[in-house]
Amino acid sequence: MTKFDEATQAVRVDVTTYDVCLDPGYVVGGPLNGGYLMAVMLRAAVDASPYEHPVSTSAQFLRAPATGPAQVRLEPLKTGRTAAMARVTLVQDGAAYIEALVTTATLTGEPPGWTAGPPVAMPPPEECLPLPEPKPGSNMTLNARMDLRFDPPTVGWFTGTPTGRPESRAYFRLSEPQDPDPYVLAMAVDVLPPVVFSAGYRGWAPTVELTWHLRALPAPGWLTLFGQGRLVRDGWFDEEVEVWDAAGNLVAQARQLARLGRG
Amino acid sequence: MTKFDEATQAVRVDVTTYDVCLDPGYVVGGPLNGGYLMAVMLRAAVDASPYEHPVSTSAQFLRAPATGPAQVRLEPLKTGRTAAMARVTLVQDGAAYIEALVTTATLTGEPPGWTAGPPVAMPPPEECLPLPEPKPGSNMTLNARMDLRFDPPTVGWFTGTPTGRPESRAYFRLSEPQDPDPYVLAMAVDVLPPVVFSAGYRGWAPTVELTWHLRALPAPGWLTLFGQGRLVRDGWFDEEVEVWDAAGNLVAQARQLARLGRG
Repeated sequence: MTKFDEATQAVRVDVTTYDVCLDPGYVVGGPLNGGYLMAVMLRAAVDASPYEHPVSTSAQFLRAPATGPAQVRLEPLKTGRTAAMARVTLVQDGAAYIEALVTTATLTGEPPGWTAGPPVAMPPPEECLPLPEPKPGSNMTLNARMDLRFDPPTVGWFTGTPTGRPESRAYFRLSEPQDPDPYVLAMAVDVLPPVVFSAGYRGWAPTVELTWHLRALPAPGWLTLFGQGRLVRDGWFDEEVEVWDAAGNLVAQARQLARLGRG
Repeated sequence: MTKFDEATQAVRVDVTTYDVCLDPGYVVGGPLNGGYLMAVMLRAAVDASPYEHPVSTSAQFLRAPATGPAQVRLEPLKTGRTAAMARVTLVQDGAAYIEALVTTATLTGEPPGWTAGPPVAMPPPEECLPLPEPKPGSNMTLNARMDLRFDPPTVGWFTGTPTGRPESRAYFRLSEPQDPDPYVLAMAVDVLPPVVFSAGYRGWAPTVELTWHLRALPAPGWLTLFGQGRLVRDGWFDEEVEVWDAAGNLVAQARQLARLGRG
């Protein structure tokens, strides 16, 4: 079992309750990565569903849970012929930390009836750049768990040359040998630095709502993350992330609404 | 009071319950328009919130409710310094029909810190086309309540010349004199014909999940709806709708995941 599979395990207690243990390896500064937390919740949601894949997840991030034991509570809402819907709550010490509405279904892998192309051309991974290792004591344990290689202009902000637009593009894979699957995708849609960094903003940018759709099962290899924002206004910004797999398929689509950092 | 305001009224019964009456004027074929139903739910959610605007709404469409009396049930999840979150359920005869997670906040109207431009250029409204009146007996009562004027190529499907891509673009306003507001926007994000029609698909395309974000309060006048899809696969498609106001501001962003029709 890989570290990621172990860190996202959900152990069935009863038909609506799963025990989980939030792993200190997926921390970003102080809080746990929101995508990692969604992956944990989706393990429980899929285990309890008659269907195999989490095709749609809408999550409201109420509070940042601590590492350690927590529970996933399920409330089945509908089981239909092609999909099932459930309310999924991450609970710690009796309080809700993330509320989600999850639709499960079984993707059969038939070829696309119609597909757009990737949003922009990416340089090959060998021409892309990692960000420097985080400073000791910065509590960015997630960085060691994944490889991110950025399209160079979109990390220009790191050296004082932001593009002036909210955007971030990178190749992504786990550091350990693990093929991408729907749970890795749940994390992938939330691992880019906030897209507003390249528009000149700074600081911790808490996600308020994130919805993502699983559109196909990813092929082995690098995932490509295309991130952009459309509007920064009134202290809020949007971040859209498309995930494409190594076989050239759109596999996940996400949008989050987040608060601008004050840093 | 306009017809729309009356049709979306939510009357407080107690702190978590509102009575509503689902209006037969917003029917599309057989079911009520999903955007109209979200507007009804958001009236209750905002009334019960300390904040003024529904900035984020994620809705799972479980079943199609009938016209007539229904209730909106609220479960407050968090009230913070800048936003409040609640679970919002549309209930009829004791059963849940739509489950939503709603974030409310108060938009102050400060100018954008950064904004993208409209996705594509639209011809002026006078060069855009309405679709023909629905056939008698087709039970499309919503059509009489709104004006939609389409960018001509995106309704080429109606006369047998689809563009071959999932797309739909139109100017939108209510037929009655009413300035757009967040509730009109809730409907606006779900009033276009399914974007897959212009890619050659047909038939009733039920929305499974729709998330939309209110980004600014709209100026009076036409709204412009830019709709597109990125992938049709495995019986599922996505539909993104951006709403721009007459003053040239991005005011709402939506994505829905829907099932392909079998028609």
